[in-house]
Amino acid sequence: MSNCIIAQSGGPTSVINSSVVGLLNANKELKTFEKVYGGLNGIEGILNKNIIDLSLISDEEINQFRFTPSSGLGSCRYKLKDIDSCSQEYENLINILREYDITTFFYVGGNDSMDTIAKLSKYAKLNNIDITFMGIPKTIDNDLKFTDHTPGFGSAAKFIGTTALETYLDASVYINNGIFILETMGRDTGWLAASACLAKLDNKPVVDFIYLPEVAFNKEKFIKDVKQKFKEQNKVYIIVSEGIRDQNGKFVSEFQCVSEDKFGHAQLGGVSNYLRMLILKEGFTNRVKALELGILQRCAMHCASDTDLKEAYNVGKMALKYASVGQTGKMVNINRECNEPYEVVYSVVDADKIANNVRYFPTEWINSEGNFVTDDAYSYFEPLIKDLPTLTFEGNLPKYKVFNQ
Amino acid sequence: MSNCIIAQSGGPTSVINSSVVGLLNANKELKTFEKVYGGLNGIEGILNKNIIDLSLISDEEINQFRFTPSSGLGSCRYKLKDIDSCSQEYENLINILREYDITTFFYVGGNDSMDTIAKLSKYAKLNNIDITFMGIPKTIDNDLKFTDHTPGFGSAAKFIGTTALETYLDASVYINNGIFILETMGRDTGWLAASACLAKLDNKPVVDFIYLPEVAFNKEKFIKDVKQKFKEQNKVYIIVSEGIRDQNGKFVSEFQCVSEDKFGHAQLGGVSNYLRMLILKEGFTNRVKALELGILQRCAMHCASDTDLKEAYNVGKMALKYASVGQTGKMVNINRECNEPYEVVYSVVDADKIANNVRYFPTEWINSEGNFVTDDAYSYFEPLIKDLPTLTFEGNLPKYKVFNQ
Repeated sequence: MSNCIIAQSGGPTSVINSSVVGLLNANKELKTFEKVYGGLNGIEGILNKNIIDLSLISDEEINQFRFTPSSGLGSCRYKLKDIDSCSQEYENLINILREYDITTFFYVGGNDSMDTIAKLSKYAKLNNIDITFMGIPKTIDNDLKFTDHTPGFGSAAKFIGTTALETYLDASVYINNGIFILETMGRDTGWLAASACLAKLDNKPVVDFIYLPEVAFNKEKFIKDVKQKFKEQNKVYIIVSEGIRDQNGKFVSEFQCVSEDKFGHAQLGGVSNYLRMLILKEGFTNRVKALELGILQRCAMHCASDTDLKEAYNVGKMALKYASVGQTGKMVNINRECNEPYEVVYSVVDADKIANNVRYFPTEWINSEGNFVTDDAYSYFEPLIKDLPTLTFEGNLPKYKVFNQ
Repeated sequence: MSNCIIAQSGGPTSVINSSVVGLLNANKELKTFEKVYGGLNGIEGILNKNIIDLSLISDEEINQFRFTPSSGLGSCRYKLKDIDSCSQEYENLINILREYDITTFFYVGGNDSMDTIAKLSKYAKLNNIDITFMGIPKTIDNDLKFTDHTPGFGSAAKFIGTTALETYLDASVYINNGIFILETMGRDTGWLAASACLAKLDNKPVVDFIYLPEVAFNKEKFIKDVKQKFKEQNKVYIIVSEGIRDQNGKFVSEFQCVSEDKFGHAQLGGVSNYLRMLILKEGFTNRVKALELGILQRCAMHCASDTDLKEAYNVGKMALKYASVGQTGKMVNINRECNEPYEVVYSVVDADKIANNVRYFPTEWINSEGNFVTDDAYSYFEPLIKDLPTLTFEGNLPKYKVFNQ
């Protein structure tokens, strides 16, 4: 019996380790491979033979690892060169895999990782190498083509929705509250920012406006929106994606936005702070706060979606099953069969169709004003954030376990 | 039977509404007052007769309110003028209380609110007014004198510890990780920043350095600390309080810190970004990230401490009991009797001893290098973050209820 290896790549998520455990446990059941190796720090680590035997780790530690956020096998941002221009790396990698008697390589990641899977499987086919390559989807950005959604997104959406609700309450306690701007990730797409619509009080959304990269940002329209809403309710709660662009496609975050606060200090920051400056310049309120969620939104396991965790586990399990019947150069796909009750089935899609491709937030789910989402977005989001995981605690904080340190 | 009123003041916390519910429920049991009124937006709202009858609200809504973060009766930052300089406001307030047949006024807040309690009880005594005034402690800053700790702090500490652990994992996934700086609140004291020591992986703290307002910030020492640690482990995780000052007592956040990033854009921000710039200037790494937790740390009910929630409830309950035996001009105090098992008892302290006073993080709990805390700090913090509350959910996000909107 031969062995397999699994590695992680790109930005971490809260649920990426669950995919590794799903694969590990499926192999315990199916006994497809003798050993399941873990490659530390993705391709970059494997090329340096940073490889551990995951089969040797105790069940207890594996279960902690399953509920640990971030890439617990380490990650990398390493893109293989084109096969034509440089085959040396490919040869080196194949030699290392052969040395460990590895016949299947699993890679958990997003677009770039699927590029790696596509290239490696192509190289193997061209050179009659009997090693298969299988991709496992992961990204909080939810921007992979074909799959209904990506593992990692549901947990990020749940944290964003929860946080929008809680910060809205905090930002609404005074008689004069002013304006609050929360900035989410999403360099190319608005999935994360849009998920803030889930935050509701007395069954009404608390967020007034959501600005997405899919809608060209218009300064004048923005000011008009905010001024009008402030006049109506004496407070405004705004969500903005880091990736919003103007009508020329230029990132708004790249605009200069130095100005001076009341102490004469220059004030600067990301998109949210730029919007803050735009509002302050108008002079109708001086109470404007901006907050970036930053990496919190992709590692908040304490507020993860159990549905997301289970699906991350299942795509790992399914990857093993598909590999065991000889599939290669594919990524496991999640297809939503039904919304009520929520039900998904799994399939595979060619990895090269995922690589270097982007799935945008649907235009038809954006309102006509371009500053909020429609009911379709709710139906899409709601099942993805269901239930909370049961974590293990130690000293009253979650007990986590990683293998890359 | 006469009535009482309760109101909230100052910055919100996750558990401030539990104190209101503790008082309400104690009154249901003891029947000390006929009605419990809620003053919306603190003194400021009461002076405008923004008063609701909390006795009329359903048990279901009261229970949701109990587990809702932020000041659900609204808040204010309103300081009464000195009695000698202007007694008109005092008269107005007393007249409104009399109109509602209110004989006890409860105020949930920090130093400034205790100043209000002290002034009002003094005014009442001077003028033979038969109304009593009782303070209920609240602040995430944990900087009130006499009380062992303040309701609100434990939940903030739990969120900070959890978040430090999770962002540490996220910031450690690559081979070259660089430096991560997390900024906490704490304008005058280091309690919040210090609580990040709780974040542990494999039973070891993940935070390398904690910089507190209680230690004069020294740029050269900071650079030396960070450079050395980076050399040792190729990554550094830093916690900084927004309130750190230099040896002259000047806030580090007030230093100019404009510089240029690789796109030639000016970069600016709070303390954490200033530290980021200091490190970047040294040139030993260009991977330095800074993140401000901002208001998240005081409203994250989804990660609250159940011990904190219960104590917030109990100080509300005890306030009613003390008021019913004629106490006035006091604040309810928490006294820690034992650490294992953790046990507290309640007492009262004069509100004027709390007002305009600050309790600093103990110097003897800071290490000799001035960049971390000692074991005593752990023993102090650990019981305060115990257990999670059971929240009600709707649409898979917490269901909250407030009365100020």
